[in-house]
Amino acid sequence: MMKRILSVLNSNSELVSAELEAILGSKDSDYAVLLDSMRYSALGGGKRIRPTLTLEFSRLHGGSERAALTLAAAVEMVHTYSLIHDDLPCMDNDDVRRGKPTNHKVYGEATALLAGDALLTMAFSVICQSEALSDTQKVKAVRLLSEYAGANGMIGGQQIDLIGEKKRLTEKEHKKMNTLKTGALIRCAALFGCIAAEADEAAFSAAERYAENIGLAFQVTDDLLDIGEEDEKTTYLTFMTEERARRYASELTDGAVNAIKDYEGSETLISLARFLRDRQV
Amino acid sequence: MMKRILSVLNSNSELVSAELEAILGSKDSDYAVLLDSMRYSALGGGKRIRPTLTLEFSRLHGGSERAALTLAAAVEMVHTYSLIHDDLPCMDNDDVRRGKPTNHKVYGEATALLAGDALLTMAFSVICQSEALSDTQKVKAVRLLSEYAGANGMIGGQQIDLIGEKKRLTEKEHKKMNTLKTGALIRCAALFGCIAAEADEAAFSAAERYAENIGLAFQVTDDLLDIGEEDEKTTYLTFMTEERARRYASELTDGAVNAIKDYEGSETLISLARFLRDRQV
Repeated sequence: MMKRILSVLNSNSELVSAELEAILGSKDSDYAVLLDSMRYSALGGGKRIRPTLTLEFSRLHGGSERAALTLAAAVEMVHTYSLIHDDLPCMDNDDVRRGKPTNHKVYGEATALLAGDALLTMAFSVICQSEALSDTQKVKAVRLLSEYAGANGMIGGQQIDLIGEKKRLTEKEHKKMNTLKTGALIRCAALFGCIAAEADEAAFSAAERYAENIGLAFQVTDDLLDIGEEDEKTTYLTFMTEERARRYASELTDGAVNAIKDYEGSETLISLARFLRDRQV
Repeated sequence: MMKRILSVLNSNSELVSAELEAILGSKDSDYAVLLDSMRYSALGGGKRIRPTLTLEFSRLHGGSERAALTLAAAVEMVHTYSLIHDDLPCMDNDDVRRGKPTNHKVYGEATALLAGDALLTMAFSVICQSEALSDTQKVKAVRLLSEYAGANGMIGGQQIDLIGEKKRLTEKEHKKMNTLKTGALIRCAALFGCIAAEADEAAFSAAERYAENIGLAFQVTDDLLDIGEEDEKTTYLTFMTEERARRYASELTDGAVNAIKDYEGSETLISLARFLRDRQV
């Protein structure tokens, strides 16, 4: 089971990387360094969980692979931009990401800032330029992405995280931060699969419930894996015992599985949810 | 003539500010400071040249005022985000904008970064949420905005500008920088008016030619007004005499006027082009 899901993740990751390579294909230009910087982060590894959600939900509901791949690339570009900006000195000030120097360490802060801006902006072009999506699908996708990645989604979560640096967040605020900061784009990715497949409303609800549960479970598991790290950060372990956190991650994973288990062909998404709970990294 | 165009600019500016107030309306939330920061810059004055272009090109071609106002607000949100990011310490490191402290001076660098990200993202939501635009218009607008504001548009121009800090730009590179950095969004704004009005292809071409000319003229005039400023910056005056620059601004303005003068009702846009050439600030 574990081996199969790893192979699915791997093959989806290769598909998305090839798509991103094509989108960010090298162009001779007076600002080539900007595109180099965008490629550096977009092609710099990562588990590609979000694009996998898009691809798998599209497959579950019989969507076009081409349409799904476009949307998967768009959501990964937005994820990549958020990491570049999050790593900047005025934010988390991180020097290393995925075992490599962060974007601003290689290209300087100004170009890193612009590369993030450009990846975000280009995600919307990629959707609108697609020949595999109808206008209705494009408008749905742009609207969803801009709302889930925006001030009342991912960016709102980043702002709560900033506030948390100055004052202790309550359990409710901490959960909201996670629901928005990492959860919103995970939900968007799953819903993008439903858009690619022009699925019905029940499919959208199920995808959102699945993604909401794995998003939270992902964070709880991250916090469990980080036990013993030095820093004073607020995590789920601030609010619950280790045992309770493990139970919570399992309940969330069950919630995700229950949301989709009645769909024929949902085995991959079920394995993915369990894999994310059981992972050791 | 001068008095009339000032009154048009003023009334358009009020319309756009009201629209932006509505879009960025205060919401009680755990991240209220993010929305405050977005409002601070979006409602902090400015000539509103871009939204005026959208409104006037829509009126020229009989577009819906509601549709035009939505697109005008979207383009101004993108302009505002670009100013916030441009002012950051890693970019121009400016403390003052429009006579007030820059966004990061008031809200801190991290929140300013996020406010810029959020304004950019929200511009796309605003377009897609509109009830006055068809799906076809929305897709055209999102595509145009994301391309003109992206890596091969405004952000590419910002990157050339950065490169220009380290090496002297050639005249050609300097012109390309302006064409992209400020010109691309000005062209987008004019074309947005044509989208609002569902104008024909000839109207799109004329709007783009008009906007390309006033965009360049605007920059040449800026450079003429800045003569005597201390800094070593490359400007049009690096490459031409003052007399030649004045002639160039006039030629560009004539080019703008010629692009649209055969349309009935083009007086306002003609005055606008001349006003931008003759302005003293």
